[in-house]
Amino acid sequence: MLKLYGNVASGHSYKVRLFLLLAGIEHEYCNVDLDVPLAERTLDFVAASRFGEVPVVVLDGTSVCQSNAILAMLAARYGALRGLASEWPTVSEWLSWEANRIGFSVPNLRHALRWRAQQQPVLDYLRERAAADLARLDRELSASEFLVSSGVTIADLSCAGYLYWIHEAGLSLERHVHVRRWLESIAELPGWQHPDRAKRP
Amino acid sequence: MLKLYGNVASGHSYKVRLFLLLAGIEHEYCNVDLDVPLAERTLDFVAASRFGEVPVVVLDGTSVCQSNAILAMLAARYGALRGLASEWPTVSEWLSWEANRIGFSVPNLRHALRWRAQQQPVLDYLRERAAADLARLDRELSASEFLVSSGVTIADLSCAGYLYWIHEAGLSLERHVHVRRWLESIAELPGWQHPDRAKRP
Repeated sequence: MLKLYGNVASGHSYKVRLFLLLAGIEHEYCNVDLDVPLAERTLDFVAASRFGEVPVVVLDGTSVCQSNAILAMLAARYGALRGLASEWPTVSEWLSWEANRIGFSVPNLRHALRWRAQQQPVLDYLRERAAADLARLDRELSASEFLVSSGVTIADLSCAGYLYWIHEAGLSLERHVHVRRWLESIAELPGWQHPDRAKRP
Repeated sequence: MLKLYGNVASGHSYKVRLFLLLAGIEHEYCNVDLDVPLAERTLDFVAASRFGEVPVVVLDGTSVCQSNAILAMLAARYGALRGLASEWPTVSEWLSWEANRIGFSVPNLRHALRWRAQQQPVLDYLRERAAADLARLDRELSASEFLVSSGVTIADLSCAGYLYWIHEAGLSLERHVHVRRWLESIAELPGWQHPDRAKRP
């Protein structure tokens, strides 16, 4: 059975758990205590995780880490949430954009507010990036229900992962009406759970 | 013929140009002036580029942007620099890691030093991340010649892209002997060019 190492406070873990929930894939969820330093985590986790971080998926004896690499592998493996073959380059573009943009700015702002304080100029820097990233998403979603036209894909799961916690990052979606509508569309899909609930089943 | 929109000052463009040089793929290089605001760039470029940024590759009438998405597409298309099939998950992990880690920290530090000043706490923040990222790479490369064991792949091209300009980011590789050795190995490959030279052929 597929094993997912994750943590309920991690939006990167949530992206993968959300894929499994929406695609209806049975799995074992192993909670990793993020308060334990990387080097002191359980041996099975350390063996499975290239970077010592969650999420990690173990499937058929192979471990894969990095949420977007996992999503791409799962979508190919299960033929779910991947869009049309012709849309794959676009899905891949959004996964790369996420890792460098909204999957950096919003999580690191949330991290700074919740776990490790940063000085004001750092918060301003991250907020400026997050604002640009949300504006980018809002512009795209003003013309399309999901990020690729055929329907919901892992690109949406990846880019939306942290946005159900937008208030924990000290941000608001008040002016981003298309992003709000899109998050609601995803939340209406059968199997969806809020990240605060998407933990050990 | 493959068309690459790029800019000689962009390490993300360099990663793609380096793939084309090492794989010996004929292409047309279109220089994009990054001093022109996104919205005012040439119509053919705006039409081709989802995010208004370089690099963009146009091939068979399809445009692909985001350097790592382009590298993955090119490696699949040309069967070059992709490693063994069994290593593909690992290559994919490194591409994701790059986008969120060393492809964020080093380029943004260089950008702050060369083009847009940032306050000291922001520089400290980026330097702390870059130091962790270089240490991570150095540890990995202490045990392996390249990032996957069968040889050089797009994972190496992606993670190395900005490191030939490490001094422009105000950093040094003095203590990262394995990273230095790895950059030299890549630089010895037939077709390699330093990013300052890897522009219009």
